[in-house]
Amino acid sequence: MEHTKGGFTMPGEAGYEKLTLELAARWGADVVRDSDGTKLSDEIIDAGYGVYSTICIIREHNEFGRAHPECLQQTFLSTAPRIAGEGPLKIHLMAGFFDEQFRVNDGAESVGYWQVWDRTANKLVPREGWSYADGTVTVSDPTPYHAYTVSFLAYRIWEEINMYNHVTNSWKSEHLMPIDPRLPQAQEYLYSYLDRWCREHPATTVVRFTSMFYNFVWIWGSDERCRSLFTDWGSYDFTVSEKALSDFEAEYGYALTAEDFINCGNFQVTHMPPTAHKRDYMEFTQKFVASFGKKLVDLVHSYGKKAYVFYDDSWVGVEPYGAHFKEFGFDGIIKCVFSGYEARLCAGVPAKVHELRLHPYLFPVGLGGAPTFMEGGDPTGEARGYWVNVRRALLRAKIDRIGLGGYLHLLEGFPDFVDYIAEVADEFRAIRVLHDSGSPAVLPLRVAVMHAWGGFRPWTLSGHFHETYMHDLIHINEALSGLPVDVKFVTFDEAKSGALEGVDVVINAGRAGTAWSGGDAWADPELAAALTGWVHKGGVFLGVGEPSALPGGWGNFKMRNVLGVDLDTGARVCHGKYTFNVEHVPGLLPQGASVPAHDRIYLTGPETRVLAEADGAPTVTAHRVGEGCGVYLSGFRVNPENTRMLLNLMLWASGRSLRQPWLADTPKAECAWFPEARKLVVINNSGEALTARVSTDWGEETVELAPCGIEIRER
Amino acid sequence: MEHTKGGFTMPGEAGYEKLTLELAARWGADVVRDSDGTKLSDEIIDAGYGVYSTICIIREHNEFGRAHPECLQQTFLSTAPRIAGEGPLKIHLMAGFFDEQFRVNDGAESVGYWQVWDRTANKLVPREGWSYADGTVTVSDPTPYHAYTVSFLAYRIWEEINMYNHVTNSWKSEHLMPIDPRLPQAQEYLYSYLDRWCREHPATTVVRFTSMFYNFVWIWGSDERCRSLFTDWGSYDFTVSEKALSDFEAEYGYALTAEDFINCGNFQVTHMPPTAHKRDYMEFTQKFVASFGKKLVDLVHSYGKKAYVFYDDSWVGVEPYGAHFKEFGFDGIIKCVFSGYEARLCAGVPAKVHELRLHPYLFPVGLGGAPTFMEGGDPTGEARGYWVNVRRALLRAKIDRIGLGGYLHLLEGFPDFVDYIAEVADEFRAIRVLHDSGSPAVLPLRVAVMHAWGGFRPWTLSGHFHETYMHDLIHINEALSGLPVDVKFVTFDEAKSGALEGVDVVINAGRAGTAWSGGDAWADPELAAALTGWVHKGGVFLGVGEPSALPGGWGNFKMRNVLGVDLDTGARVCHGKYTFNVEHVPGLLPQGASVPAHDRIYLTGPETRVLAEADGAPTVTAHRVGEGCGVYLSGFRVNPENTRMLLNLMLWASGRSLRQPWLADTPKAECAWFPEARKLVVINNSGEALTARVSTDWGEETVELAPCGIEIRER
Repeated sequence: MEHTKGGFTMPGEAGYEKLTLELAARWGADVVRDSDGTKLSDEIIDAGYGVYSTICIIREHNEFGRAHPECLQQTFLSTAPRIAGEGPLKIHLMAGFFDEQFRVNDGAESVGYWQVWDRTANKLVPREGWSYADGTVTVSDPTPYHAYTVSFLAYRIWEEINMYNHVTNSWKSEHLMPIDPRLPQAQEYLYSYLDRWCREHPATTVVRFTSMFYNFVWIWGSDERCRSLFTDWGSYDFTVSEKALSDFEAEYGYALTAEDFINCGNFQVTHMPPTAHKRDYMEFTQKFVASFGKKLVDLVHSYGKKAYVFYDDSWVGVEPYGAHFKEFGFDGIIKCVFSGYEARLCAGVPAKVHELRLHPYLFPVGLGGAPTFMEGGDPTGEARGYWVNVRRALLRAKIDRIGLGGYLHLLEGFPDFVDYIAEVADEFRAIRVLHDSGSPAVLPLRVAVMHAWGGFRPWTLSGHFHETYMHDLIHINEALSGLPVDVKFVTFDEAKSGALEGVDVVINAGRAGTAWSGGDAWADPELAAALTGWVHKGGVFLGVGEPSALPGGWGNFKMRNVLGVDLDTGARVCHGKYTFNVEHVPGLLPQGASVPAHDRIYLTGPETRVLAEADGAPTVTAHRVGEGCGVYLSGFRVNPENTRMLLNLMLWASGRSLRQPWLADTPKAECAWFPEARKLVVINNSGEALTARVSTDWGEETVELAPCGIEIRER
Repeated sequence: MEHTKGGFTMPGEAGYEKLTLELAARWGADVVRDSDGTKLSDEIIDAGYGVYSTICIIREHNEFGRAHPECLQQTFLSTAPRIAGEGPLKIHLMAGFFDEQFRVNDGAESVGYWQVWDRTANKLVPREGWSYADGTVTVSDPTPYHAYTVSFLAYRIWEEINMYNHVTNSWKSEHLMPIDPRLPQAQEYLYSYLDRWCREHPATTVVRFTSMFYNFVWIWGSDERCRSLFTDWGSYDFTVSEKALSDFEAEYGYALTAEDFINCGNFQVTHMPPTAHKRDYMEFTQKFVASFGKKLVDLVHSYGKKAYVFYDDSWVGVEPYGAHFKEFGFDGIIKCVFSGYEARLCAGVPAKVHELRLHPYLFPVGLGGAPTFMEGGDPTGEARGYWVNVRRALLRAKIDRIGLGGYLHLLEGFPDFVDYIAEVADEFRAIRVLHDSGSPAVLPLRVAVMHAWGGFRPWTLSGHFHETYMHDLIHINEALSGLPVDVKFVTFDEAKSGALEGVDVVINAGRAGTAWSGGDAWADPELAAALTGWVHKGGVFLGVGEPSALPGGWGNFKMRNVLGVDLDTGARVCHGKYTFNVEHVPGLLPQGASVPAHDRIYLTGPETRVLAEADGAPTVTAHRVGEGCGVYLSGFRVNPENTRMLLNLMLWASGRSLRQPWLADTPKAECAWFPEARKLVVINNSGEALTARVSTDWGEETVELAPCGIEIRER
C-alpha cells in the first residue's frame, strides 16, 4: 500500500512533542487534537497541523455550579419498591443510589413533580397521603402489604463521563459538575465562557464539541454488585428539570409527569417502542439543544474556526438524523467506532466532514476494564479486529477522516501498533479516494430495515455493538453495513404508507414487544395487510427472531400468514407441530453458516419450506405468498458466512440469481467495484491468507490476499 | 415378600382360558376383566372370579348412528387463515382435516352457529358477507390481504379411541361412531341398550364405564406430518351440539358462540386460565353428564351389579373432583397410571374403590408406537419404571386395587414380566394393608399448590406425565406425590380468601400466562397483597419458572417483592443486574440436585440470597420478608435428588430443621412410618442396590435394599 497523507487526526501530548511529530509523519496525520485531560504544547500547535480542541461545554464550571446549584443538571429517579406493613411507611429516597452522583432536589417546585405510587395496585398516592422531610418520604396510611415507590428529581453532581474516567483511569482531580443550559443564567454564562475560550485558543482550527449538553443516561447505584443501575445511549432522562417540564407544558399544552420518565422502573429505554409523550419530549428537547447549540456554533464560526460535533457522550438532543440537526450548522461530525454499522451511521449524517475515531483509544485499559496499552494488552489485535469490521463499510459509504484518541506516550512499548496504524491510515486513504469519482456498484437489491425509529435512528440500536449484541438486529445491521446493496431504514407507519415502493426486501428483526420487532405498532391491522399485499405483489418480508409479534387475536406473529411460522407463547402447547424435512437449495446456505434455534417457533402449515434446522426446530424457512415470499430466521449472528447467507437469502427469495458480479467465491472475502474509477477492491475479512475468485463483468479475477489484507486492481 | 391374594384385576382372554387361570393364581387376582376387542369365555366367567365388563356406552351403535345422523357427536372446527386477494375468497372447510374423523354439519341450525372472521382485523364478518355451498364458504367482499377463517360445526364420524386403536393395533373392523346422549332419542336408545346389556351379562359383577359420554378433544389432520392438530385431556370441545348450545342459552341467559370454543385457533386448552364462559359451559356439561349418568348407574345397580368409572378417555364432564360427581353414585373409580401423581389423583376421589390400571398395557406397542410386547420391547423394565413412580405415592395415600389391561396371550414370550407383576402385586398388597390401621406419619409441613383449577383438578396438568413434561408443575406434583407432607390444591381466589390458614408453603409454578402460573388472576392486586401479608406473617411463597407473571405495572412477577427476583421481558435490557456469590447452606441442596437456568431472571436487589446458579443465572434463591420467605426456583425437573431438594427448601425456608424423622440419608430411598401399624416402610427408588440409614423416633435404622427394592419393618 502506497504511503499517503491526510484525513488523519492524532492526539498530541504535551511533554512528548518529538513523539507527536514523528508519529504525525509516520501516519500521514494532518490534524493534531487534544483529549480529555491532555493539553497541547506550543511546539505541537506551531508545527503547521490543523488543531482540534475538544470542549465539553457543560462541565469544568464547578465554581459557577457551586454558586448556582439550581443550574446543575438533573434526572428523575425512583426508589425501589418498599412493602408496607401496618402503619406509616418511611422511604429513604437515596437508598441504593450512588451519592457521589446524585443529590435530592427538594425545592418546592421540584417536590411538586414528585410522585408516590402504590405499585401493587398500580395507583398514584394523592399528595395529601405523603410527606417529605430530611431525605425521607413518609406514606401516612399505606395499604398493608402493598409496595410503594417514590419518584423524585435529583441533581446530578458528577458529570458521568468525568465520573467514568475517574474510575477507569484513576483520576484524582475534582469531580466535574454538569451545568444545565436550559436555565437562562447558565446559557449566558456558557456563552460568554465559550467566547472567552475562543479568544484564548487562537491556534485551534476546529472546536470539537463533546457533544452538546446532555449525556446519555447513566444511573449509578451505591452497591458495587450493581454499579450501573441503568444505561441507555439514546434516552433523554438527563435533560429534565423543573424548567424543562414547565416549558414543555407551556408549549405542548399538557404536563409530563415523573411517570413519563420512570415508567414503572423501566425508564424509557430505546429498545422499547417510544410513547407519544416521549416522542413529544424528544422533539421538544431537540429544538432547545439545536437553538442554543446554533448560538454556540455561530460564535465559533465568528472566530474563523470550524465546529465539529462528537456523536457520542453528551449527544442527547443532537440527533444527527433528526429534523433539527441542520440548524446547528456543524461543519463535521466525529463518531467513535468499533463496527461497520457505526461507520455507516456516521457516513449518512448530513454534514460536510465525517470522521471516525478508531478503537482502541490510547488508554491503559479499554471498556470493560481489560488491559490495552499495558502488560497483557494486545492493542494491535484489537485495532485489526475493529478495522476489519469498519473497512467493509468504508467500501460502501464515504468517510472523510479517521483518527485516534488518548495518550501518545503509551505507544512507546507498542511499535507494532504504530506500524499497524500506518497501514490502516494508508488503506483508509486508498479507499477514500475511490469514492471521489463515483459510488461503488450495488446489486439490484433494495433493502428496508423496518423498526420503531426508522430513519430517525438508522443503523444503531443505541450504543456500541458490545452493548447491544443480544439483539438480532444489530447483527443484521452489521452484516448489511458492508454488503453491496442499497439499505434504508423505515418506520412502521412509513412502511404502511408507500415507503416500500421500489424496495425488494423488508427486514423486521427483534424480540417481541421491542422497538425493533414493533410491539404495539402491529395492533394496527392495516400494517400487516399493507405488508401482506406488498409481499403478494413480489416483495420479500424477512423476519428474524420474533418479528411482528403481538399477543392477541389469531396467533402471535401478525405476519404469520406471510412467514408461514409463528411463536407459541403457551396456548399452543397441546397443538400438533408439523414435522419437516430440511430442503437443500444448492448454493443458498454457505458452509459454516448457522442460525440459533428458537424453541417456541412452529410451522403454520405444510407449505412452509424449511431450509435449515437446529435442535429439531426450524431455523431458516421460506413461504411463498403470491409473487413474493416470507423468509424467517430464528436468529442472526454476524460473521462472514452468515452475512453471505443473508445476502443469498435476499437474492433467492426475491427471485434473483445467486450468481451475481462483485462477489467472491468465499464469504471471507468481499469486494467493491467502483465503475467510474474502474477499480476493483477485494478485502479479506479473515485472519488467514486466502485466494479469492471474484466474479466480474469481464470474467473471474483471482486475488491472493494476506490475512486481513486488501487488494485494489485497476481495469 | 409374602405371596398374598386380592385387589388385583387381570384381563381375561377367550381362547387362552388356561393361561388366564394360571396367571390369576400367580398374581393373586380376584377379578377378571374384558378389554376393548376381547370377550371372556364361559370357562373364565365361571371360574369364581369377579368379572368386570367394560362398556363404552356411546359407541358400538353404528346402525343407530346411521339411522339418526343428527345424534352423532360433534365439535367446532376452524379452517386455517386464508389470505384474501382482490375479489371474493373461497374457503374449503375440510381442507387440512382428517375426513375419516369429521363431516361438516351443514344443517340450517348448525350454520346459524358458524362464524367467518377477519383474523387480520380481529373482526367478525356479518352473516350477509358470506355464503355456503358444497363444503365451501365464499366471503363475497373481503378486505384485500386480510386473512379469514371459518368456524363451523362438524359431526365426528369416528370415535377417537377406536380410531387410535385401529391405527396403533391395526384393527380392521368397522369404524365406530360416537353417539351424543344430549339428544332425547339417543338417551332413550342408550338407556334401553344398557338395560338389555345388563340382562345379557349376568356374570358381570362390575360394569366398568369407559367412561361416560364425551372423549377428551383429539382433532386429527389430513397431513401425516401433523396428524394430531389438537389434543387436550381436559377440554370440552367434543360435547358441543346445536342442542347443547340452545339448552345452554336457555339456562344461562346468554349464548355461547363458536369463538368461545375456537378462541383464535388456540381452543380452550387446560393449560391456560379458563374464561368465565368456559367455566359456565363446563358446569353446564357436568350437570348433564351427571344427570343422565346417574340414570345409567341406577340401572346397573338395579341388576345387582356395581358401576365403576374409568378416569380417562371419555371422562369429559365427569370431573371426579367436581360438585356433581357424587350424583353419579359410582362404586369405584379406575385410573390408568404411569406416575405417582396419577395415583394421588385417583386416591383422592370420593368413591369407595380406587383402582389403578398399570402400564404397560399388554399391547404389542406402547403409546408413541415403541415396541412393548414384541421383538425389541422391554415390558419388565417399563413396568418397573412406572411402579417405582407409583409406589412412593401409595405409601402416602391408600389405593384399593391394581390391575392390567390388554391381551394375555402376548405374555407368552415374556416370563420375566409375569414374575415381575407377581412381585408388584404382592408389594401392592403389603403396602395397602398398612393403611388399614391408620395413616402414615407426615412432617409438620402443609403445602398448598396454587393454580387456576385448584382442588377441582388437583395433581394432574391434563393428561399423563409424558404429555405435560414441559411444565415445571407436573414435576413438582410428581415430587410431592411421594413426600411425607400434607398437600392440597387451591385456586387463586381461595388463596386470597383464607384457604392458606394453616398452610406453611404455597407453590406457584408455571410459565407466564398459563393456568399454572395464573395469568390474569394476578391482575387483582389483592392477590399479591394477601400473599405478601401471609408471607410477612411466616408463610413461604415458593415460585417456580415464571410464577405470578403478568405484564403491566412495576416488574413482571407480581410477587417480585416477596421472591426477590423478577423476569425481564425486554424492557430491562439496559438495566444493570446484581452480581452475586452463591451461598452454601449445609445440607440444603443434595449432591446431584440441579435446576435449569432461566436466562431472563434477575435479582431485584442485594438482599436476595442465591443458593444455586447455572450458566451465570441464579437458579435457586431465597428472600426473607418479615417472618416468612420467598423462594424461587428457575425450573424443576423431578428426580430423587431434586425431590429431596424441594423438601429441604420447604423445611428450611419455613424455619424448620433439615433433620426430620422418617427421612433416609440418601435421596434415592424414601420411607413411611405407619404409627398405628408400627411399621416402617423403606423403598429404593433407584435401579442400584443401596444401604439407607433412616432417622426414626427410636434412633437410626439401617436398611439394605435391592435395586427398586422395598423393606417393611415392624417396631
